[in-house]
Amino acid sequence: MRAANERVRVAFQGERGAFSEEAAIKLLGEEIELVPRPTFEALFTSIDEGASDYILAPIENSLAGSVHRTYDLLLERTLHIIAETIIPIAHHLIGCPQASFDDVRVVESHPVALAQCERFFAAHPHIKRVVAEDTAGSVRRVIERGDPAYAAIAGERAARVYGGRILREHLEDHHENYTRFVLLSSEPRVVADGDKLSLVVRLKHRPGALYYALEPFARRAINLLKIESRPVAGQPWQYRFYLDLQAKMGDPELDAALAQLRERADEVRFLGCYRSAQRTEKERF
Amino acid sequence: MRAANERVRVAFQGERGAFSEEAAIKLLGEEIELVPRPTFEALFTSIDEGASDYILAPIENSLAGSVHRTYDLLLERTLHIIAETIIPIAHHLIGCPQASFDDVRVVESHPVALAQCERFFAAHPHIKRVVAEDTAGSVRRVIERGDPAYAAIAGERAARVYGGRILREHLEDHHENYTRFVLLSSEPRVVADGDKLSLVVRLKHRPGALYYALEPFARRAINLLKIESRPVAGQPWQYRFYLDLQAKMGDPELDAALAQLRERADEVRFLGCYRSAQRTEKERF
Repeated sequence: MRAANERVRVAFQGERGAFSEEAAIKLLGEEIELVPRPTFEALFTSIDEGASDYILAPIENSLAGSVHRTYDLLLERTLHIIAETIIPIAHHLIGCPQASFDDVRVVESHPVALAQCERFFAAHPHIKRVVAEDTAGSVRRVIERGDPAYAAIAGERAARVYGGRILREHLEDHHENYTRFVLLSSEPRVVADGDKLSLVVRLKHRPGALYYALEPFARRAINLLKIESRPVAGQPWQYRFYLDLQAKMGDPELDAALAQLRERADEVRFLGCYRSAQRTEKERF
Repeated sequence: MRAANERVRVAFQGERGAFSEEAAIKLLGEEIELVPRPTFEALFTSIDEGASDYILAPIENSLAGSVHRTYDLLLERTLHIIAETIIPIAHHLIGCPQASFDDVRVVESHPVALAQCERFFAAHPHIKRVVAEDTAGSVRRVIERGDPAYAAIAGERAARVYGGRILREHLEDHHENYTRFVLLSSEPRVVADGDKLSLVVRLKHRPGALYYALEPFARRAINLLKIESRPVAGQPWQYRFYLDLQAKMGDPELDAALAQLRERADEVRFLGCYRSAQRTEKERF
């Protein structure tokens, strides 16, 4: 048993200083215990292993799209979405403390971060890209190596955590770059004021199946915020659909729509009802 | 002008021996000229630069899902889908000619290939994973290095092209592993016997928009084979939908459905009508 005064442990994928760490603190404050996990697999087993109380996982970037690993692992493990948060993503070039921009010959980072800085690499063709598992870990390695020819692309937090020097700010091609994260728990939770609902649906294999699955929501003007399809392993070219809906639990219209969906689908799994981050974020950005 | 007896040049992403190369030969035969391109960006500019006549791009894997870069670049460049093909993906462990399995300490490959061999890495925790840009290029580097401690995960074709030794066969977690590729041309083409149609749609921002967009097809029993959503850059949490439909060009029912869709959507782009690979593949596998 953990004592009541112990801090809530939040696991995230990556190393200290990752964007996920920033998101965890934004959502839950500075008083949490951060539990870095090297891979998505290690992240998603962290609650079962007793290493964390919650998992914070990136689910979508406003430019790169959905994070498939999170969608897939959400289904493999029985986890519940209890909150979400959105943070702006700014990619900086981070080198050793003594480095200057002209020294840099090799830049290491996560493939998505590298891909989001195409214009920078096009303007500096002498700089070589190296793919790595995560952004913050790239900064740590650059600092450990101590060679001014090496730099990393990561967020400002990673520079601070490892004592790196920001050599160029805002390398990202698009400034409208946000990542949405979901907070996962092993227990379902009724969130007061929850206005967003996530489901996974497996449809019957017949023409119009998706259309008939959406109908119960559309005719009640329940807004579909997002739909994501993921392949069903072992059944090539068959899909599961992840739906995010703007809806409140306990609304009789929603209950009626869900009942109809269950009749029409082969499988409906409820992932959670939580407070939408978009509503609050839109006021801020 | 190119002479009539010159071979058709087909560009693909990766190095010689890649799965894309295998797919190109399956679709167009051995008599083509293979044009390897290091990145997806270089692949998609290859026709404009005069380096290729066609582009063969992976669009979907039956386990990993859609290839986002291909979807995004298909839209940025005005290209037309004129054919598709599906190949089975088998991941082998490939080392130097003198290597044996017990020598291997480091395995390099594309992140998707590494992720599809989770059970192998769980069973051999002493082997370190290293991410690389592509599978075949990893084999080339392993052979060049000549160190038996290094191996790569790639297809059988890569082992053959670079003279590598297959140390373990079929490392993939799931055998039902296929990748679908599309053949792209700068000119639209009317494919006789085309039975599959691809569109990109941008919907109005209102509840039920997707439902009303699918309705013209559902009520005519035109089968939706796949739907993929991709973010709209610069407009966070807005999406474009890529639709694959089972339909023949010139069918008056299809024409009526498309006309209705155009009324209901903000933007409809036709990507191509071509012969479905699934129909033929299903008979073979």
